[in-house]
Amino acid sequence: MRGLMMDGPLLISSIIKHAARFYGDSEIVSRTVEGPLHRYTYRDLAARAAQLAQALLALGIGEGERVGTLAWNGYRHLELYYAVSGIGAVCHTINPRLYHDQIAYIANHAGDRVLFLDLSFVPLVEALAERLPGVRAYIIMTARATMPATTLRNVLCYEELLADLPAHFDWPQFDENAAAGMCYTSGTTGDPKGALYSHRSNVLHAFSTCIAETSRRVQSNRSHMPIVPMFHVNAWGFPYASLMMGSKLVLCGPKHDTASLYELMEGEAVQTAAAVPTVWLGMLQYLESTGQELTSLRALRVGGSAAPASMIEAYEERGIEVIHGWGMTETSPVCTTGSLKPEHRESPDRLAYQLTAGRCMFGVEMRIVADDGTIQPDDGVSIGELHVRGPWVAAAYYENALASADAFTPDGWFKTGDICSLDEHGYLTIHDRSKDLIKSGGEWISSIDLENAALGHPAIAEAAAIAMPHPTYVERPLLVVVRKPNATVERADILAFLDGKIAKWWMPD
Amino acid sequence: MRGLMMDGPLLISSIIKHAARFYGDSEIVSRTVEGPLHRYTYRDLAARAAQLAQALLALGIGEGERVGTLAWNGYRHLELYYAVSGIGAVCHTINPRLYHDQIAYIANHAGDRVLFLDLSFVPLVEALAERLPGVRAYIIMTARATMPATTLRNVLCYEELLADLPAHFDWPQFDENAAAGMCYTSGTTGDPKGALYSHRSNVLHAFSTCIAETSRRVQSNRSHMPIVPMFHVNAWGFPYASLMMGSKLVLCGPKHDTASLYELMEGEAVQTAAAVPTVWLGMLQYLESTGQELTSLRALRVGGSAAPASMIEAYEERGIEVIHGWGMTETSPVCTTGSLKPEHRESPDRLAYQLTAGRCMFGVEMRIVADDGTIQPDDGVSIGELHVRGPWVAAAYYENALASADAFTPDGWFKTGDICSLDEHGYLTIHDRSKDLIKSGGEWISSIDLENAALGHPAIAEAAAIAMPHPTYVERPLLVVVRKPNATVERADILAFLDGKIAKWWMPD
Repeated sequence: MRGLMMDGPLLISSIIKHAARFYGDSEIVSRTVEGPLHRYTYRDLAARAAQLAQALLALGIGEGERVGTLAWNGYRHLELYYAVSGIGAVCHTINPRLYHDQIAYIANHAGDRVLFLDLSFVPLVEALAERLPGVRAYIIMTARATMPATTLRNVLCYEELLADLPAHFDWPQFDENAAAGMCYTSGTTGDPKGALYSHRSNVLHAFSTCIAETSRRVQSNRSHMPIVPMFHVNAWGFPYASLMMGSKLVLCGPKHDTASLYELMEGEAVQTAAAVPTVWLGMLQYLESTGQELTSLRALRVGGSAAPASMIEAYEERGIEVIHGWGMTETSPVCTTGSLKPEHRESPDRLAYQLTAGRCMFGVEMRIVADDGTIQPDDGVSIGELHVRGPWVAAAYYENALASADAFTPDGWFKTGDICSLDEHGYLTIHDRSKDLIKSGGEWISSIDLENAALGHPAIAEAAAIAMPHPTYVERPLLVVVRKPNATVERADILAFLDGKIAKWWMPD
Repeated sequence: MRGLMMDGPLLISSIIKHAARFYGDSEIVSRTVEGPLHRYTYRDLAARAAQLAQALLALGIGEGERVGTLAWNGYRHLELYYAVSGIGAVCHTINPRLYHDQIAYIANHAGDRVLFLDLSFVPLVEALAERLPGVRAYIIMTARATMPATTLRNVLCYEELLADLPAHFDWPQFDENAAAGMCYTSGTTGDPKGALYSHRSNVLHAFSTCIAETSRRVQSNRSHMPIVPMFHVNAWGFPYASLMMGSKLVLCGPKHDTASLYELMEGEAVQTAAAVPTVWLGMLQYLESTGQELTSLRALRVGGSAAPASMIEAYEERGIEVIHGWGMTETSPVCTTGSLKPEHRESPDRLAYQLTAGRCMFGVEMRIVADDGTIQPDDGVSIGELHVRGPWVAAAYYENALASADAFTPDGWFKTGDICSLDEHGYLTIHDRSKDLIKSGGEWISSIDLENAALGHPAIAEAAAIAMPHPTYVERPLLVVVRKPNATVERADILAFLDGKIAKWWMPD
């Protein structure tokens, strides 16, 4: 028997409609490529997304067609997120930091019909244009006055495209399983592989992100800054979740140097921000060297790789909570949140729990599978490959049966390639990427643990542990480090520092 | 083009699986009909729900069949919530406070196949059993030792039913639109009408409830106490949302007197609790008369009717935030949350915003429709009937085409019957039930506003404003009040108190 509830679809357009009506005054602040800070409201965003939707239809973009973007975090990129998916097309965010070959492969494989690009990427696209036969138009995301001279053909100006179009649009209704967004992941081997998100997956993921985001000592509806790029897995869901919660959204544009990030965070009273550990390590050095503080920041979210203990402690001393999350392009991405259980918040082991990748969020299922296919117990010790499934996890790669056969199990799980354990409280620990583990004399060495141990040294800014072929042990670890500015540290100092902190056989030769 | 995401259904069983695995140690504390406090964990709940699921199958309960409950808030009722819907049957919670005729009508109209009842309701069901020909078995929710003597035939003992069954059950997968729960609403006129919730609607509603619940200064995963009964619209969603968040759940059983509620809230360190204003007014009097405090409580959620300003102020003085919500049986129920926007939290108008019914939650759409069918603007002034729609709003009543035709519009909205306005910030104000408005000399008088004005008088415990026929004005208001214990107050005192607080023509004759 079916329930008797309304059966409207979960659509991304419902997020922007809700945001514009119930949080119309909430601000979006963007650092622009052109220079100045741009400031407008959700209401403005909705009006311009409505204009853009009509412009896309006028360009002939049909349902399911892919619209590529090469853009920083900014308000025009946000307008694309909503307008493209809102008309039933697919917003395909491309990572401009990839090699040219990869960008060309991705745009062609996705079949992008038009490409929106920030001013910064005009030279890049000029160099690639010959290899993009399917792209019918290039839209440069700026106003007429700042349009560059370019060798590109079929070039349009973003602001001209929108000008004079009505600020209202009746967003169409369609199946919530329709494709909404696309993002390619580039592994260390093989061609990039595309995840194809749906309206349903993005809305459910946003619900979950809101819960993760509010499950801590932060007011939900203050000020967020996703430093993680909008070309990288939906900027971890913030472009949707922030609008659902009504929070001020701060977008950092092209300037990722620490001083610029600091200025924006402090100037806009950012309360929570999200980025990879490298950003937060840089920020910490900036705070230490300048003696400044982030006076509004209450919590920072870390993903991509693990934050070292020394970094977590340094931020906590400043009253800033560090919260790990774990996810991948194939998982929308957020699968875990590092907000601690009450009994661990005040526990002497607090730091140990903060160092984990957090706990599985409702909606996602996890299993740890040993080499022989055994499902491992949640005992904190048994390791194996992490498999996940759930409504915001990919079921296959876009037009890539070979890679799909490799990454998804016949019984419907995604094989993450991460070697993990789960403890009895549900905390996930990532021991390594399956490809990054170092196997020395038959014993595993975690490159992550080795790197994090080295990062505890006050003179080390960055560290990488790499497996080197070895005649006797098959592999042995090589540790490569970057010194902090003006710091002096030698090989012997580091080895002495590591002594006692890691197993004997882990010691880099 | 479809997205390429996993297409698993949103099922209630996924909540209990997640809760048992990732928050297995979280506590559920129940005051029992038998007397003592009962205490166990999510892990225990999941094991017993698994046993109950198998017991239901052994009783021959098939997919879509209705299982009635007449029960207080307690762990066995919670087991029914999960086990009944988990096997694909429908958990039909019946309000034991209704008239006998209504209970018999509801159980027969729903077609309940078996009826689970707390010890308290054995006499009630004995009186009704003759009129319930479709009920094949009565299961008394207690152990063998406490089974009562009864005239009921086909009686089973709950604990015997579960005993010796395996503590694991593979919850089946099915369409997320399958019916999961049922609750009847009894208006002032006509037969009760049944809302039939689905797995999808309950899971989406729970996501939304989690966001509402965490959008404030409370740790999400502490201790919740839904005083609102589990036989009343899913206890506002807490039986699902609390498990999704992992919070301790405190269930008050049959004892609703203020001293018992106080003892349980204080003893179990409850941080948030939910109930109608009557409960909170009684608690306030209790605190005032005993000089005690609720030392753990941080926020209370109010629904059902509006909390008066005097009550909100008194709790806020004690450091307890009062948060309105609005909803109905037909809306699962939560549609709004009264958590304030940042700019209104520190505003001098804070109280005015807290007095509203809160802001629309993502997922629900609202419109205010004037008598002539015009959609009203969000200006805080224009009033009309509130219409809502969304994935956790009913689309029709169960087997009641006549009532459905009356309550749902052809374009897919539910007509709430509440006369409301929405302001420019999205705050909803309920002016009255359409049937409760008093129309005097062509002008509307809000019975709610009149009642709340009267409740501001220190000697008045409860107040009701009623429309009385009048030869000249068609209707005039009659105000009926209950004095606080030992308070003395006369007609003239009240009229003098109201003078200046309400419009002249509102003054009760």
